[in-house]
Amino acid sequence: MRKETRLIIALDVLDAKRAVEIAEATASRCDAFKVNYPLVLSEGLGIVDTLGRFGDVLCDFKVADIPATNRLIVEQTFDHGASGIIVHGFPGRDSLEACLEAAQGDVFVVTAMSHPGAERFLLPQAQQMAQLAVEVGAAGIIAGATRPAVLHELRERIGSLLILSPGVGVQGGSPTEALRQGADYLIVGRSITQSGNPPKAADEILSQIQGADAMV
Amino acid sequence: MRKETRLIIALDVLDAKRAVEIAEATASRCDAFKVNYPLVLSEGLGIVDTLGRFGDVLCDFKVADIPATNRLIVEQTFDHGASGIIVHGFPGRDSLEACLEAAQGDVFVVTAMSHPGAERFLLPQAQQMAQLAVEVGAAGIIAGATRPAVLHELRERIGSLLILSPGVGVQGGSPTEALRQGADYLIVGRSITQSGNPPKAADEILSQIQGADAMV
Repeated sequence: MRKETRLIIALDVLDAKRAVEIAEATASRCDAFKVNYPLVLSEGLGIVDTLGRFGDVLCDFKVADIPATNRLIVEQTFDHGASGIIVHGFPGRDSLEACLEAAQGDVFVVTAMSHPGAERFLLPQAQQMAQLAVEVGAAGIIAGATRPAVLHELRERIGSLLILSPGVGVQGGSPTEALRQGADYLIVGRSITQSGNPPKAADEILSQIQGADAMV
Repeated sequence: MRKETRLIIALDVLDAKRAVEIAEATASRCDAFKVNYPLVLSEGLGIVDTLGRFGDVLCDFKVADIPATNRLIVEQTFDHGASGIIVHGFPGRDSLEACLEAAQGDVFVVTAMSHPGAERFLLPQAQQMAQLAVEVGAAGIIAGATRPAVLHELRERIGSLLILSPGVGVQGGSPTEALRQGADYLIVGRSITQSGNPPKAADEILSQIQGADAMV
C-alpha cells in the first residue's frame, strides 16, 4: 500500500454500482479503499476484484474465528486480489498466526475500536493485542481516532508497524489529532460516501491531513 | 429452532453442491445447519436461502464490528432466511444490541471459543460476556465442548438461555461431557462433513447424545 495521501476511503455502501462510482471519482485522492462485509454480502466477493481496478483494496472483515476457519477466509480474500485484510486479535495467537500464514498481503490487527462499547472488553487489552501484532509480524494495527491518548500509547509500543485510524468524521475523531498521535493513515467512510460530492469531501479531509503534516 | 436431536451440523465446506448434498442426506438427523463465512464468501449469501429448504440455518458469522456495521450484516443475513446468527460479545454492549435490534430470529453470543488461543483474551471474560448475553436478551451462547468446566460455570450463570457447544470430534471435546455440563446442542462439523458417509457419522454422534441423555 502506498503512503502518499494517507487517506483510506471506506466504501461503506451496499451497492456495487455506487461503490464503483465513488472509487472511480476518488481514486487519485486516496491510498486505498476499504470494504466491509455488508457490501460483500450484498454483492459477492467479486466486488474486491472489481474495485481492485481503481486501487488497493483492504478487506475489513474483522476475522475472529478459530484458526482453520480464519485460514479459509483469508485465503479466499487474497484470491480475489485484496491488498490487505483486517483481523481481530482477541481470538488469540493461533487464530492470528493462521491469518498471517494464509495472507498474500498485509494483515492489520484490530486493537482499539472506535465505538463506545469497545471500552468494556477490548480497550483494557489493547496494548497486549498490539504487542501480539508485533510478535506475529503483522503489517500494522487498527486504532480508533476517537481515543487519541490510547492511539499515542499504541504508537509507542509497536515500533515500525503502521497505524490505520478509523473513527474520523461521523464518529467524532479529529484527523489532525489522530495524525499527531501517530496514525499513519486515516480511514474515512460516511463523511465521504454519504456526501453529495465524494471527491470534494475527500479533498476537505486531505487538506486537514496536509495541515497536520505541516504542523509536525 | 426445534430441539429434537440436539445436533447442529456445521456445513464446513466451500462448495454449494457439497453443502446441499450433506444437508439433504442429514436433514432428518439434526435440528439445524450451521454455515460460516468460507462457504458464504465462496458461494454468496444465497446459499443460506438454498440450505433453508432442508432445515433451519444458523449463520456463524462471528459478527464483531461497530454497531452500524453489525446492523447491516445482521439485516442481510435474516433477509436471506437465516433462523439465527452467531455474534461476538467482545466488541461490547452497543455492538451486541445493534445485532439484537436488527435480528429477525435468534442471536447467539460467543463466550468461550474452543481453540487454544481463546485462553489469552476471551476466556478470562467469558462469564462477563455470558452475563451481557443475558442482559441484552440473546437466545443463547456459544461455549466450546473442549472446556467442560467453563461450560458448567456458564450454565450456572445464564438461566434459561441455550448453550450451543462446538469443538466436539476433530477438536477433541466429548459429546457426553458437554451435554452433562449443560450444553443444549452440539455443533459438529468436520467429523460429519469430512466423513465418507455423513448420515452414518451423524448417527454415531446421535447415539452418543442419546447415551448421555439416558445417563442424566
